[in-house]
Amino acid sequence: MMANFPAMLSLRHLLVLSLALNVSLILRMVYEGDDQQGSNNQNMGRIIQKSRLVIPSTISANSTRKDHAGVMDKIINLDHGDPTMYERYWRQMGDKTTIIIPGWQSMSYFSDPTSICWFLEPEFSKEVVRLHNVVGNAVTQGRHVVVGTGSSQLILAALYALSSPHATEPISVVSAVPYYSSYPSMADFQKSGLYKWAGDAESFNKDGPYIELVTSPNNPDGYTRKSVVNRNQGLLIHDLAYYWPQYTPILFASDYDLTLFTVSKSTGHAGTRIGWALVKDPEVAKKMTKFIELNTIGVSKDSQLRAAKVLKAVSDSCEEEYSQGGEESFFKYSYKALEQRWKLLRVAVDSGGLFSLPKFSSAFCTFLNQESEIQPAFAWLKCEGDIEDCGSFLRGHKILTRSGEQFGASPKYVRISMLDTDEHFMQLIYRLTTIQK
Amino acid sequence: MMANFPAMLSLRHLLVLSLALNVSLILRMVYEGDDQQGSNNQNMGRIIQKSRLVIPSTISANSTRKDHAGVMDKIINLDHGDPTMYERYWRQMGDKTTIIIPGWQSMSYFSDPTSICWFLEPEFSKEVVRLHNVVGNAVTQGRHVVVGTGSSQLILAALYALSSPHATEPISVVSAVPYYSSYPSMADFQKSGLYKWAGDAESFNKDGPYIELVTSPNNPDGYTRKSVVNRNQGLLIHDLAYYWPQYTPILFASDYDLTLFTVSKSTGHAGTRIGWALVKDPEVAKKMTKFIELNTIGVSKDSQLRAAKVLKAVSDSCEEEYSQGGEESFFKYSYKALEQRWKLLRVAVDSGGLFSLPKFSSAFCTFLNQESEIQPAFAWLKCEGDIEDCGSFLRGHKILTRSGEQFGASPKYVRISMLDTDEHFMQLIYRLTTIQK
Repeated sequence: MMANFPAMLSLRHLLVLSLALNVSLILRMVYEGDDQQGSNNQNMGRIIQKSRLVIPSTISANSTRKDHAGVMDKIINLDHGDPTMYERYWRQMGDKTTIIIPGWQSMSYFSDPTSICWFLEPEFSKEVVRLHNVVGNAVTQGRHVVVGTGSSQLILAALYALSSPHATEPISVVSAVPYYSSYPSMADFQKSGLYKWAGDAESFNKDGPYIELVTSPNNPDGYTRKSVVNRNQGLLIHDLAYYWPQYTPILFASDYDLTLFTVSKSTGHAGTRIGWALVKDPEVAKKMTKFIELNTIGVSKDSQLRAAKVLKAVSDSCEEEYSQGGEESFFKYSYKALEQRWKLLRVAVDSGGLFSLPKFSSAFCTFLNQESEIQPAFAWLKCEGDIEDCGSFLRGHKILTRSGEQFGASPKYVRISMLDTDEHFMQLIYRLTTIQK
Repeated sequence: MMANFPAMLSLRHLLVLSLALNVSLILRMVYEGDDQQGSNNQNMGRIIQKSRLVIPSTISANSTRKDHAGVMDKIINLDHGDPTMYERYWRQMGDKTTIIIPGWQSMSYFSDPTSICWFLEPEFSKEVVRLHNVVGNAVTQGRHVVVGTGSSQLILAALYALSSPHATEPISVVSAVPYYSSYPSMADFQKSGLYKWAGDAESFNKDGPYIELVTSPNNPDGYTRKSVVNRNQGLLIHDLAYYWPQYTPILFASDYDLTLFTVSKSTGHAGTRIGWALVKDPEVAKKMTKFIELNTIGVSKDSQLRAAKVLKAVSDSCEEEYSQGGEESFFKYSYKALEQRWKLLRVAVDSGGLFSLPKFSSAFCTFLNQESEIQPAFAWLKCEGDIEDCGSFLRGHKILTRSGEQFGASPKYVRISMLDTDEHFMQLIYRLTTIQK
């Protein structure tokens, strides 16, 4: 579908050379076009063209230095993990995943009264199982699928299902630092007597039952994780929202008691609000279903049908690539897009001494059938030297990020979304380079 | 769109006559066809034809006495308020409310970052305001619209928003008996320290702040309600899910602090899981939005877009009926459909002495511009005489209902859905008549 990308070294060399000459060239080229630039810029132009960083026509065409200045003043918000990067892929797919729902369809509360999860659309459930089988990232045999309004609702449903209404005190909920910033407030905002946030799993030493949230690859830092408390009364929730080939090598099919996934991060359909849990114990699946019944009386059927169609297109794209040597699969395409972004980010960060990023080792991905990189959905950026509050520092440069403090870590860290639009991502690269000039 | 229905008296007379001759005629006619019956049955056939009770072709065509017996053995589940009755109207509307969503649309978490409710689709919000203006059942000026995954989520969001995280004890949540059966478990299932179910509003006498849920028309019994505690630290949530012209005369535009509606009951799209709140205080709207953010990170955009299209079709149908003398509006159609059902139900109940129903007075409906009846979405049926457990009694006749006990009332009462399919409704009528034979 797209030309192959040149080897990593030549990209690095070219960019480092360009950056050494003039760090603002990336953006000037973007805003003023190749023909006004020298040969280095032309090379960079080609590189960026060959990468998947398409510059929005609204700013690349007919823009002037005045527009440019206006754009530079704009605040770019990379605090949330809004996965708008994926929009372009789905536009290219045309009407393959267009959904048509007649006004009289899916009016009932019920989808499948014979299933434990009575509001689960059979078509959605079927495509979930198929996709896991195609990707090889989760065992589905002997599991009950429970659908949720995003995986947030499923985290709450799991906390409800794993806690006991008869316990004398709320069960402790822990996760290792840096943990997903929403876990503490999700556990505590209702002041529930069933469960209670107890902080960093690494320092947890209370006796008795507990729930550990294991996020792998981890949000915010992208590292692969295992449970850390490992005591005999531990109950585990595996949040595998990012265990997909574009973010991390698929090493094995996950085989846990309670595992969560979501379309927001796998395909980029965040606005659809669909997540799913794979649950071993039918009693836990029943309690999670009960939670969702009391919380929202089920999950939008329209969104389940749409998600089913999107997951089907993803599985189809994988099978077609392998069986017919057809176009790139969704995951291959997304892997390459993120590969470009991570290369540009590392060059920008390495152009000075102010920032650093986590280092990852590559590994063999059983899905891509190649040595592949860890390229997380978020950059866990550290401000080096004297900058104590990295979030405030970047806010001064009109880059909104989420402070490390919200993840139980130091304010020297921030989390930056890598899944935003090309325009915002290019602005990020330009600004990180300019700051260090 | 449909022939006018004969005056109420003639319907009653015909049915009472038929029932006096043979209570099983209704169903025999349905299963065996007019041509095998006498003239009374032919009259009833015409009546049912003229009513909106279309008998599903799967059972009316080519059915035999054997099939009939099989159908009679079937359990009919009228426990839930599944609004499948409305499906036929939307089928008749053809593709007017068909929604087409391309795969790349609505991928972001955000709908309108400038709105308090940042995940509210502007198109949905616009159609909510328009429909209330067309129907005249709620003041929208000076209100913030907050969208929810059904009104259940909005009830929880409202409890969260109206309670204080700093209070020494949870705020009491009350509602007058018979109250909606889910209120107690919705308030208590999380064992929240913010709010706590405190039972019947009529007997509530604790000092200090409280939240009263006012459901009008009431679920289960259909009566119009006002708040009953009326003390100065009271916070009110008005659940007006059924304040629509098909269920009750529209007497005035509701003008409360916090009012809830849902498409499940207004248009019948329960599977879409969309409700909305009209909220006066922006701080309360903000806290409700925060709740939904922590609970499900927003509300399905697909469903909001679909609901917007359905609400638009309803408003259009109202404006076309009045301005152009066109087809019946959605509400006129639904009013007539429920009118038929309630007439059949009352005849069936009055055919013996075992059961009774609430009595209502008609009133002038400002929307329908006529004297109109209260015809609730549920029948609040009482078993008379020695039958102490009405739910068990009906279950013995393969009719599943919800016991009065779940509404804080006597087990002599049950709630029966009036919004199910024609097939199930006809079975109900037949069985209630047969039981009393």
